[in-house]
Amino acid sequence: MTPALICLDWGTTALRAFLQAADGHVLDTRASAQGIMALDGAAFPDVLRAVAGGWVQAHGPLPVLLSGMVGSRQGWVEARYVPCPARLADLGAGLVEVPDPPHGFGPVAIAPGVLMDDDARPDVIRGEEVEVFGALALLERSDGLFVLPGTHSKWVHVADGAITHFSTYLTGELFAALKGHTILGRMMTAEAPSPEGFRRGVEAACTLKGPGALLARLFTVRAMGLTGRLAEADSADFLSGLLIGAELLDATRGHVPFTLVANPALTLRYEDAARLLALPHHRAPAGCGPAGQLAVARAAGFI
Amino acid sequence: MTPALICLDWGTTALRAFLQAADGHVLDTRASAQGIMALDGAAFPDVLRAVAGGWVQAHGPLPVLLSGMVGSRQGWVEARYVPCPARLADLGAGLVEVPDPPHGFGPVAIAPGVLMDDDARPDVIRGEEVEVFGALALLERSDGLFVLPGTHSKWVHVADGAITHFSTYLTGELFAALKGHTILGRMMTAEAPSPEGFRRGVEAACTLKGPGALLARLFTVRAMGLTGRLAEADSADFLSGLLIGAELLDATRGHVPFTLVANPALTLRYEDAARLLALPHHRAPAGCGPAGQLAVARAAGFI
Repeated sequence: MTPALICLDWGTTALRAFLQAADGHVLDTRASAQGIMALDGAAFPDVLRAVAGGWVQAHGPLPVLLSGMVGSRQGWVEARYVPCPARLADLGAGLVEVPDPPHGFGPVAIAPGVLMDDDARPDVIRGEEVEVFGALALLERSDGLFVLPGTHSKWVHVADGAITHFSTYLTGELFAALKGHTILGRMMTAEAPSPEGFRRGVEAACTLKGPGALLARLFTVRAMGLTGRLAEADSADFLSGLLIGAELLDATRGHVPFTLVANPALTLRYEDAARLLALPHHRAPAGCGPAGQLAVARAAGFI
Repeated sequence: MTPALICLDWGTTALRAFLQAADGHVLDTRASAQGIMALDGAAFPDVLRAVAGGWVQAHGPLPVLLSGMVGSRQGWVEARYVPCPARLADLGAGLVEVPDPPHGFGPVAIAPGVLMDDDARPDVIRGEEVEVFGALALLERSDGLFVLPGTHSKWVHVADGAITHFSTYLTGELFAALKGHTILGRMMTAEAPSPEGFRRGVEAACTLKGPGALLARLFTVRAMGLTGRLAEADSADFLSGLLIGAELLDATRGHVPFTLVANPALTLRYEDAARLLALPHHRAPAGCGPAGQLAVARAAGFI
């Protein structure tokens, strides 16, 4: 099959690269830890050459599409956010070309992020929106609620082919901060996962009442330990279940079906929580990232 | 006036000592940074001698009452928790004497903490309960809702002279962990306080809906910064207002009057938030700590 496009999902801490045929077949992949905050002094063009130089040597000057934090103010070239509601065509129209692409490469373009320009609750997304359009393409759908678990979980609402609304949950980063830098972490020395602790945490999330309840429930994790009600070995996963459970209940309002996209390790955790909460859900097929990048490149007339 | 009792409120990071007359007059005070986790190798008797040795040299072998984390498993001698509902007499009955008090001192006793032995939401308190009994004595009351702001805020319900229920909010420690160890802290470089940021944060707390909403609202602090809606100089106090507002609304259910006890710096912050939320509240007089310790010593027949 003939390669037609090189795609990079270039985030803060890592990047993944795909060599794609025009019909969406992924012919080759690469991964690197050189996220935009981990370049170790290398310039963006050097990293692109190191990761994908072999592909253009073998196949000629292919076009390159980049998505993710590489388009932020701290990235290679800034690709400004497009506003909600955002369709595939809006992302395509927001593509920004990199001046002077590295020798041997075709044109290099960066996809924009999406901005929810809401005075009371603004939000931003950069990279995950491309995966959502990939999920829509692979599932042949034009609406739904999609979650991309991560350090910052993104919940994305799609209606009639447009991203209408999204919400970022700080769950993963909050878990790490609580475990690493508060009194709760003192009991969390266990390495092994605890499905039982996770289950109890998710159940505890169901009993929360009101917006501030979590602030008090967090301390009871310690009090449960002090009173012998929670084993040290279960405590980290209890906290994880409590936070993920609270996130799922909030984002789905307790009933809206949702689709899980990407992130294999966290996806299992979110699936477990959804099952325990009896929330309707399913998992998007693998490959939403490159599928979305191909769709954006097409919408932009980039290939 | 004749000194009758030496009291120490001996916490994790600091201690305060009081020389009291039998009628409650505080004749002298001392403070030290040698909390039980900051002894720097010193033994508990050495610290007591350094802080209060001058008092017994001048006035003879006075009895000493200790409260706070000094009675925990990590303290001098463990004084086990008494269960809720807990009256002054229960605290008195739970007093534990230190074997071999340092030379020149009278008997040294440690007050117990209080345990809420609830399977679903256990909680513990150690030190603040003594201040609550001091507030009741000074205010000549036997019921009410009391808050002791701190790294861990304690909300204590008192009915008919007994602590019936209490709840610990991790608010202060969560704020520090979010500011110091998540992406939110990157914009929080300002040193000066921002009443405007605090006000906006408290108002944002009012708009939260449901137990998991806070997890999403936290990220919008960053998005507000990225979109120019929140100045860096206002961001730390916005977060503080958001968390304290959520705590106040949860603990008071939005209407129950409460009394603020101790902690001058945080008390102002909690008063500001309560005013913004139109929550009925007042401030307990100074000196609740030693007043409570005297009351416990009397209830125990210790003096």
